[in-house]
Amino acid sequence: MSVARIAVVAGDGIGTEVTAEARKVIEAVLPGAAYTEYDLGARLYRRTGEVLPPSVQEELAGHDAILLGAIGDPSVPPGVLERGLLLKLRFAFDQYVNLRPSKLWPGTTSPLAGVKPGEIDMVVVREGTEGLYVGAGGVLHQDTPAEIATEESLNTRHGVERVVRDAFARAQRRERRHLTLVHKTNVLTKAGSLWARTFAAVAAEFPEVTTEYQHVDAASMFMVSNPQRYDVVVTDNLFGDILTDIAAAVTGGIGMAASGSVNPERAYPSTFEPVHGSAPDIAGQGIADPAAAILSASLLLEHLGRDDEARRVSEAVAAEVASRTPGTPLRTADVGDRVAGAAA
Amino acid sequence: MSVARIAVVAGDGIGTEVTAEARKVIEAVLPGAAYTEYDLGARLYRRTGEVLPPSVQEELAGHDAILLGAIGDPSVPPGVLERGLLLKLRFAFDQYVNLRPSKLWPGTTSPLAGVKPGEIDMVVVREGTEGLYVGAGGVLHQDTPAEIATEESLNTRHGVERVVRDAFARAQRRERRHLTLVHKTNVLTKAGSLWARTFAAVAAEFPEVTTEYQHVDAASMFMVSNPQRYDVVVTDNLFGDILTDIAAAVTGGIGMAASGSVNPERAYPSTFEPVHGSAPDIAGQGIADPAAAILSASLLLEHLGRDDEARRVSEAVAAEVASRTPGTPLRTADVGDRVAGAAA
Ligand SMILES: CC(C)[C@H](C(=O)O)[C@@H](O)C(=O)O
Ligand SMILES: CC(C)[C@H](C(=O)O)[C@@H](O)C(=O)O
Repeated sequence: MSVARIAVVAGDGIGTEVTAEARKVIEAVLPGAAYTEYDLGARLYRRTGEVLPPSVQEELAGHDAILLGAIGDPSVPPGVLERGLLLKLRFAFDQYVNLRPSKLWPGTTSPLAGVKPGEIDMVVVREGTEGLYVGAGGVLHQDTPAEIATEESLNTRHGVERVVRDAFARAQRRERRHLTLVHKTNVLTKAGSLWARTFAAVAAEFPEVTTEYQHVDAASMFMVSNPQRYDVVVTDNLFGDILTDIAAAVTGGIGMAASGSVNPERAYPSTFEPVHGSAPDIAGQGIADPAAAILSASLLLEHLGRDDEARRVSEAVAAEVASRTPGTPLRTADVGDRVAGAAA
Repeated sequence: MSVARIAVVAGDGIGTEVTAEARKVIEAVLPGAAYTEYDLGARLYRRTGEVLPPSVQEELAGHDAILLGAIGDPSVPPGVLERGLLLKLRFAFDQYVNLRPSKLWPGTTSPLAGVKPGEIDMVVVREGTEGLYVGAGGVLHQDTPAEIATEESLNTRHGVERVVRDAFARAQRRERRHLTLVHKTNVLTKAGSLWARTFAAVAAEFPEVTTEYQHVDAASMFMVSNPQRYDVVVTDNLFGDILTDIAAAVTGGIGMAASGSVNPERAYPSTFEPVHGSAPDIAGQGIADPAAAILSASLLLEHLGRDDEARRVSEAVAAEVASRTPGTPLRTADVGDRVAGAAA
């Protein structure tokens, strides 16, 4: 196997701190990978007004994966970095599988009464390149009483089928082999019908996977009242944005929430990043929890076909988190050291 | 004050049972209201293929309010009754304020650990006549690899401003006077900007109301991790659909979830209905909980300017629910009798 080329975009705030630990862990299990660091985020934006210079995007394209920390800073207008970097990469690199596992890990606590570690274990496969995220729409007669604003959700058979097939394949590889389609077919009849028909067609290829359909409002409720029922969930870009945050909430918040924006064919690099933000309030103190970043590194390893290394990393994170003494302050680097040591 | 004309659309399944109790309670506190019963829902649809005959819609328009139970039956294709009746009424009768209070009532249990009755008390003001619910969009090249499907969210300054102003006015009348705008301005930049600018403009009219903005994904998480923080929430049609179901979930499910689809100017009748469905599995047994239907009747009374009667009804429901012995089976009619007796 050739050397893995990993682009590191540590970003802002605690992004740099947690990414250092994620890289440390990858280095421990995959010696010899090649890293290139890119200084993107608020600093670059303040200095140059640029978010993702075309030359950098081109360089990134030459990597196998992007390890991303977090971007965002109060000094930058909201949305600029998110759209200019995160969403830009998803679209430019055709990262159509937005992967968000949610597990209630031993040592973590759900806000839900009576739900015990191990009971929640799901993966949301969120479409990443279509829907309401495409930026279609417009504003007319701005700042007048006649103003209208539109947003258009664009969905293609091509785009829906590939993400649905990916979700079925993932469900097929899991123990429960259950896949839930979430949409709002009773109101969004056009896109809903495309999703439902495509789902039914692809289901025929996976006779061992049991399936279910839920409206997004019902699914949002069940995510709270009975998150145990979910195994793999497939849904569109915006519904996935919402459902994965509910899933994160019921598994104790975004402290352990990892994500991958994946191009499964590896035609382009995929991005792996913790769901949490740059947390400027605790940045620079060495106290940020790198667990979500390291779990994102585990997704990265899995994506590179390093299943064994990926499993060792996620098990080491699980063990480290389970071994924590509640109330004891955490040191970012110590967590990374322990996980790297255990996973190596 | 003239006699209130109330149209009763009991509907399907437990809809008929719970609506009988809601009506019983209104009769107890507002003697002399005039009722017209309309047989709409699955029965009419099966018999005639019609959901809302134009003549019935015209008759409904002559009423002050519509008391609705629940519609839906496995014999009817999903979506037909929802779109043909519920959504039809919202659009035809310009019910732009979709009102959804969520309270953790004494005697009910939140699935959230450590959250006690009284701690959650919010109202979501959901826009009811715009956004992705307008049905705009289309399908091209259906059932071919080239298929595309679009959904268009339409938002007007007119539509946004009136619902935002209504939400501010409601927040102004409440104790905490706090209003949260929920949208996804970082991605839905066109509609998001319209909502944010309109919100800021209307805020100037309500200097006593404190305000806050949250992205819908963050709000979905906070609804689980800290629902206590919300007082009044205003949001668009689809986000409101999702958020109100999360709010219902954290306050113990849809058993107590009431809703009103309101035209505040009373130019058209407003619809009041429990959020729960027709529950065919328990229909006809007299065991459905009419609490949500009766709380919807309380919203109806409030809408008719009968604040005192509305308050007596909701307090009577609260007392009845608090007095229940866990594990004791409930009789629909008994609950109605007790609440009617206490509220009269
Ligand atoms: C930052 C934002 C654009 C992004 C999204 O909406 O996808 C984030 O919420 C996420 O879930 O990755
Ligand atoms: C039945 C459906 C069309 C409706 C909606 O989406 O508004 C329901 O979910 C609701 O919340 O009233």
